[in-house]
Amino acid sequence: MSTGFVVWLTGLPASGKTSIANCAASILKERGYKVEMLDGDEVRRWLSPEAGFTREDRRRHLIRVAHVARLLARNDVIVFCSFVSPYIDVRREVRSIVEKDVPFIEVYVKCSLGECIRRDPKGLYRKALKGEIKNFTGLTDPYEPPPNPEITLDSENFSAEFNAKKLINWLNEKGLLNLKI
Amino acid sequence: MSTGFVVWLTGLPASGKTSIANCAASILKERGYKVEMLDGDEVRRWLSPEAGFTREDRRRHLIRVAHVARLLARNDVIVFCSFVSPYIDVRREVRSIVEKDVPFIEVYVKCSLGECIRRDPKGLYRKALKGEIKNFTGLTDPYEPPPNPEITLDSENFSAEFNAKKLINWLNEKGLLNLKI
Repeated sequence: MSTGFVVWLTGLPASGKTSIANCAASILKERGYKVEMLDGDEVRRWLSPEAGFTREDRRRHLIRVAHVARLLARNDVIVFCSFVSPYIDVRREVRSIVEKDVPFIEVYVKCSLGECIRRDPKGLYRKALKGEIKNFTGLTDPYEPPPNPEITLDSENFSAEFNAKKLINWLNEKGLLNLKI
Repeated sequence: MSTGFVVWLTGLPASGKTSIANCAASILKERGYKVEMLDGDEVRRWLSPEAGFTREDRRRHLIRVAHVARLLARNDVIVFCSFVSPYIDVRREVRSIVEKDVPFIEVYVKCSLGECIRRDPKGLYRKALKGEIKNFTGLTDPYEPPPNPEITLDSENFSAEFNAKKLINWLNEKGLLNLKI
């Protein structure tokens, strides 16, 4: 059986998904685990360069990501997927693809819209509020929080480091990692 | 350093690429290697369901495949990619993506057009000859043989088993495998 699995971080733009994933990934790499990060911005460039941000574009893109993550994880890689992935039904579809082969851990990175707008590290909310970006999740497009995520991380009140450690402890307790902490 | 690499089989439709890859893959799996097969028909369904067979469609699809293969191979997986991949420049682009991280072995599966038409296991040449398929490589679309493949396998005169063993011996001699034969 593979030792890999897929950690899927979902949350509003600028909620801190990628920071948490990067932090957790680097801790696990140091401990000798094989880790890959599939991140919204970077992966789109090669996987779905032609895709926009309509509901169907997002869906098609995330289904591809799910297959790539599954292939990696069934070969003993821990895969962190950091995507807004705003729709419950698409995340369910993603889960069903991944779970054919390996465990799927949905992580809800929870941060209020107000705080995300305040942080806005890439200036995307600012642009969207000016009407320069269409289909922007949280403003002009819906975000559907997971009703039953495996774990919720509060990124409004806690640091990425704290949340990464919380996530790793959770994975360890569930037997997905084999760390002595 | 990763022990993975990418074996890219190119050749006319029905030249026997997938048969050779399947045979080599199963030998290597038996020996305990991690192996993935990325095969034209199967991969298209999830990676590029919307793509057709124009030059640019093919290119975009194969670039995606190259990235997926690279991700797998840099995590110690031996990846067999079985694609007509008719254009020299696209294969060069594929190679440059893969070689950022891992070795790329281009395998030319050589079989005459006449013999491919005679075999035609999926009846595709028959359809293409009736004009029912457009952009069909070998008939209405060009196939550009590799000028300098790492290895050429003659699938016109030799069986898939013979060619798979020849390929494995070659990989072993080059130090990519560690088999006692």
